[in-house]
Amino acid sequence: MKEILERINQPNDIKKVNKKDYVQLAKEIRSFLIRSISKTGGHLASNLGVVELTMALHLALNFPEDKLIFDVGHQAYTHKILTGRRKEFDTLRAYEGLSGFPKRKESDCDAFDTGHSSTSLSAAAGLATARDLAGKQYRVAAVIGDGALSGGMAYEALNHIGGSRSRMMIVLNDNNMSISENIGGMAAYLGKVRTNSKYMEFKGDLEQTLSKTKLGTKLAHGLKRSKDSLKHFIVPGMIFEDMGITYMGPIDGHNIELMVRAFKTALAANKPVLVHVVTEKGRGYDFAKENPAAFHGVEPFDIKTGKGIQPVSGKSYTRVFSEAVCTLAKENKKLAAITAAMPQGTGLDEFAKRYPERFFDVGIAEEHAVTFAAGLAVGGYQPIVAVYSTFLQRAYDQIVHDVCVGELPVVFAVDRAGIVGNDGETHQGILDLSYLSHIPGMTVMAPRDATELKKMLAFALKLKKPVALRYPRGTACDLKENRAPLMYGKAEVLYKENEIALLAIGSMVETALKVKELLQKEAYRVTVVNMRFVAPIDTDLLDEVAENHRVIVTLEENIAAGGLGEKVAAYYAEHGKKVRINCIALPDRYIEHGNAEVLREKYGLSAEKIAIRVRAFYQGN
Amino acid sequence: MKEILERINQPNDIKKVNKKDYVQLAKEIRSFLIRSISKTGGHLASNLGVVELTMALHLALNFPEDKLIFDVGHQAYTHKILTGRRKEFDTLRAYEGLSGFPKRKESDCDAFDTGHSSTSLSAAAGLATARDLAGKQYRVAAVIGDGALSGGMAYEALNHIGGSRSRMMIVLNDNNMSISENIGGMAAYLGKVRTNSKYMEFKGDLEQTLSKTKLGTKLAHGLKRSKDSLKHFIVPGMIFEDMGITYMGPIDGHNIELMVRAFKTALAANKPVLVHVVTEKGRGYDFAKENPAAFHGVEPFDIKTGKGIQPVSGKSYTRVFSEAVCTLAKENKKLAAITAAMPQGTGLDEFAKRYPERFFDVGIAEEHAVTFAAGLAVGGYQPIVAVYSTFLQRAYDQIVHDVCVGELPVVFAVDRAGIVGNDGETHQGILDLSYLSHIPGMTVMAPRDATELKKMLAFALKLKKPVALRYPRGTACDLKENRAPLMYGKAEVLYKENEIALLAIGSMVETALKVKELLQKEAYRVTVVNMRFVAPIDTDLLDEVAENHRVIVTLEENIAAGGLGEKVAAYYAEHGKKVRINCIALPDRYIEHGNAEVLREKYGLSAEKIAIRVRAFYQGN
Repeated sequence: MKEILERINQPNDIKKVNKKDYVQLAKEIRSFLIRSISKTGGHLASNLGVVELTMALHLALNFPEDKLIFDVGHQAYTHKILTGRRKEFDTLRAYEGLSGFPKRKESDCDAFDTGHSSTSLSAAAGLATARDLAGKQYRVAAVIGDGALSGGMAYEALNHIGGSRSRMMIVLNDNNMSISENIGGMAAYLGKVRTNSKYMEFKGDLEQTLSKTKLGTKLAHGLKRSKDSLKHFIVPGMIFEDMGITYMGPIDGHNIELMVRAFKTALAANKPVLVHVVTEKGRGYDFAKENPAAFHGVEPFDIKTGKGIQPVSGKSYTRVFSEAVCTLAKENKKLAAITAAMPQGTGLDEFAKRYPERFFDVGIAEEHAVTFAAGLAVGGYQPIVAVYSTFLQRAYDQIVHDVCVGELPVVFAVDRAGIVGNDGETHQGILDLSYLSHIPGMTVMAPRDATELKKMLAFALKLKKPVALRYPRGTACDLKENRAPLMYGKAEVLYKENEIALLAIGSMVETALKVKELLQKEAYRVTVVNMRFVAPIDTDLLDEVAENHRVIVTLEENIAAGGLGEKVAAYYAEHGKKVRINCIALPDRYIEHGNAEVLREKYGLSAEKIAIRVRAFYQGN
Repeated sequence: MKEILERINQPNDIKKVNKKDYVQLAKEIRSFLIRSISKTGGHLASNLGVVELTMALHLALNFPEDKLIFDVGHQAYTHKILTGRRKEFDTLRAYEGLSGFPKRKESDCDAFDTGHSSTSLSAAAGLATARDLAGKQYRVAAVIGDGALSGGMAYEALNHIGGSRSRMMIVLNDNNMSISENIGGMAAYLGKVRTNSKYMEFKGDLEQTLSKTKLGTKLAHGLKRSKDSLKHFIVPGMIFEDMGITYMGPIDGHNIELMVRAFKTALAANKPVLVHVVTEKGRGYDFAKENPAAFHGVEPFDIKTGKGIQPVSGKSYTRVFSEAVCTLAKENKKLAAITAAMPQGTGLDEFAKRYPERFFDVGIAEEHAVTFAAGLAVGGYQPIVAVYSTFLQRAYDQIVHDVCVGELPVVFAVDRAGIVGNDGETHQGILDLSYLSHIPGMTVMAPRDATELKKMLAFALKLKKPVALRYPRGTACDLKENRAPLMYGKAEVLYKENEIALLAIGSMVETALKVKELLQKEAYRVTVVNMRFVAPIDTDLLDEVAENHRVIVTLEENIAAGGLGEKVAAYYAEHGKKVRINCIALPDRYIEHGNAEVLREKYGLSAEKIAIRVRAFYQGN
């Protein structure tokens, strides 16, 4: 039998599907997602959870006229399927393939590019306001998870929306999960709403929920003023109503017809309405349902076993960090660790098991995470904030204002620094050297390999000041080269020659060693330096290298602007050192999605490409 | 008669004051504040509002054992008076004098350094957690205004605190104002609480509010499930209770004894308690009470008239911007303007009056402000986000992720760039060139004077891409030098000589012209370039200047790391230009409070100091 899904080839095609076939279509979409993601990898659990939700949105909205924004955006796969992109799923997240996130450049049905959490309500508020200013009529909807709701900017947006009362629909996709389990007062509150409230009835007077009766006022006057008497009575969504946003729900997030009616009602209202929809992450695939955190973002897997089919290629930097932090915590009772909703991703899950009292998952809340760490530090603790490079961007001010101005001993374990690959523009960790290394009082380090990461973490804690330690996604190498002891602000010379000096930081040290081998074949004499520190920089080493090399090359996996190379080059210029220097870094642009190796090759950071560039530079001028 | 205030000379002295004298003491403190601030300048309205509140906190807490954190911190004057710093108030905010904000280095009674908004709850949560981990008993309290509560990180902290249930007291200082009028759903909610709830009674069973009765559950079951029936019944603080934080209040914030009892009760509870205190900004000084925004931060004034006593020295950059944005908005119907709670400070107050429908005050919420702007831009508008340099730090990620990745036409009017002076470390705008100019896709400009600011704003809007335009606090000059037309990425040569090239950005152009005059007296031939752009940089100009000058000097009011100078120096080094370059900038450290001219002198940025440095550099090497 021909699948219904095959009839869905362009936006709004779903509206031609017979109501009785909705369940079947949802089933087909789920099968398609599982099949497709099992081959390409991608975000699974979250997408399986929102199949019916997305279908209902597409039945209620018109594309591309209406504007739909997915918070974070990794759950937009069904939206992509329903807007004519199904056939591109075999290229999902591959270089030049379909993006794993909404992209305005990819489709006019993607209203706003997302990637980081908690931005959708702000963007939707902007779009709704622009619509009203322009006197247009399109509808604006945002889908935000209960996890993303712990991010402060979502609340800032709710506050604004509640005050301005712009016409828009907020769909709260409540699955009681962010990536891992949800934490915090709001999550507990939503839990109570889910538990204590019946779902809104399908046959019930859905529309009437928006027309307020005058009954309330009377009742209120009758009750004597006592909050205790009401404390345990859960009025669903009162917290949103209190802020000026009309609440509907909770609604079964797998009942398509109910959702369509609710969405149409909400979209027709002349004010902001939040529809609280309860979904199940990983629905339709038992492995994902039982362990949604493990099936959040996956590599290709065997559908029958749920197991990855690519060979595991050794220990990742994340795992090395994970072990190191546990080892250090055994001795150092003042060590505490903080994550913003990513215990697995950052490797703090093991620490959480062993030292639960010193482990803090603050929810998707990077700003709070950093200042909370500052508070712990003032209280005599040594917090490690483990966070991805791209997400730490959100706490730039807190790093400056709450940690560095006060010179507090907070260590930032900056994971996923450099190219991360398939998640693309919004997730590449290519700015951290630039946004961290100029901050007064901040020490910025990067290890050459697994062993050095462990040593640097111990070293960072001993410094008792703000330190950022960046390391990449993927397998950690262990270089055979001898190790010089770690000294503050000092680089390590791995090979000392006198013709070409390669000054590399972090993951680029391994690459530099390969470049050296390639160039040595052509009889170039290559010095290799592991810079170790980007702030402060080892100026003694720079002076020394300048003395006896014909060219100096810096190597980093960060954009060029504000990175290691710029600092080194500026140092030479300002100190009157006449050197020939070439700064090899990523270009000053955003890096698209694709396999990390493919991207490094494209942007000239593979050992082979670098060897060619260095040779050309050496011969040029 | 001797004042009671004279007996307050060290922490906890207030506890020796007789209860019946509290009112008198509050009066004396107010008189002292008005007298003192009328001479030194400083934050007036907010401090007048919290005299009794701070007294009550000092009666309930022990210093320095207990930890008290003031959000923002500009309202901590009474706290300083009560902790032995009264006699230093004649040096308030002056160089080497008393800071206008809490400073751990200044007193062990200042538990955490604040300055930016909405950080106190995170820091308090950290301190309370550290206390519990260490098995200590001290008490932790944070004072946060209702304005600061619109900042997302305060909500992130509430969410964490409500979930973790750490023992601490949050005092919500509700004066229905941030710096200007409060806006948003939360403000409306608090307004309803204030209006619809009676104050808690002094004689009432204050303590019982914390011991929950079982009555509630029963009542709840009795009520049929209908949120409409309850909607208009304001349960005070339900929004906090919903998040897991016990609520007390609202309480009269000028009734000391009532507050002391409430605070002691709250501090004794083994959980987080929020005490909602209603205060009046500017209380006790009619001019400030009637116009608290104007008396937020003041210059020295005449107590009798409320008028400033320093002569107004011409139009500020803020005012120039204010007029320019109104002029442009007249022609350009797509121009919209956004502020995060600072319509007066940014000069958008005039725009708000003339174009209210295109003006948006989103509350203290820089993150939302930026992404809301991105949404407006996608919707076809051209938003200008007017914000202080130091506060824009909070939206670094939103600038990258929501504006620049999508290449959206948002213009950032970055006011207070450079040294701001008396507010000190947390308010100096000395990082923006570093954190903005490395961002891929961002154009960074700075005008030489008032006329150029106007031209640049118009130019920025025409570019239709992300642009940051930085300008300083204080009076705008108008330089007599001829004006070259603005061209993208191009500098303007003001004087062309062939010995010393001064490459200056923004406010430093005026200084460079003075330096030129000083050096010309000694017969140096000085080129002066108005760089105009920091990103992209005018490399043609750099090449040209390198050809025929003996030394090149960059001038900027920003830290050196990641600034203009580093970029210029790196460019020369990487392109093999053998130049002698000296980068004059602020040192890579935080700049303390004090008169801006004094600080420029100290850090070598006055024309005289620069002339000396340039001469020494010229003669050296």
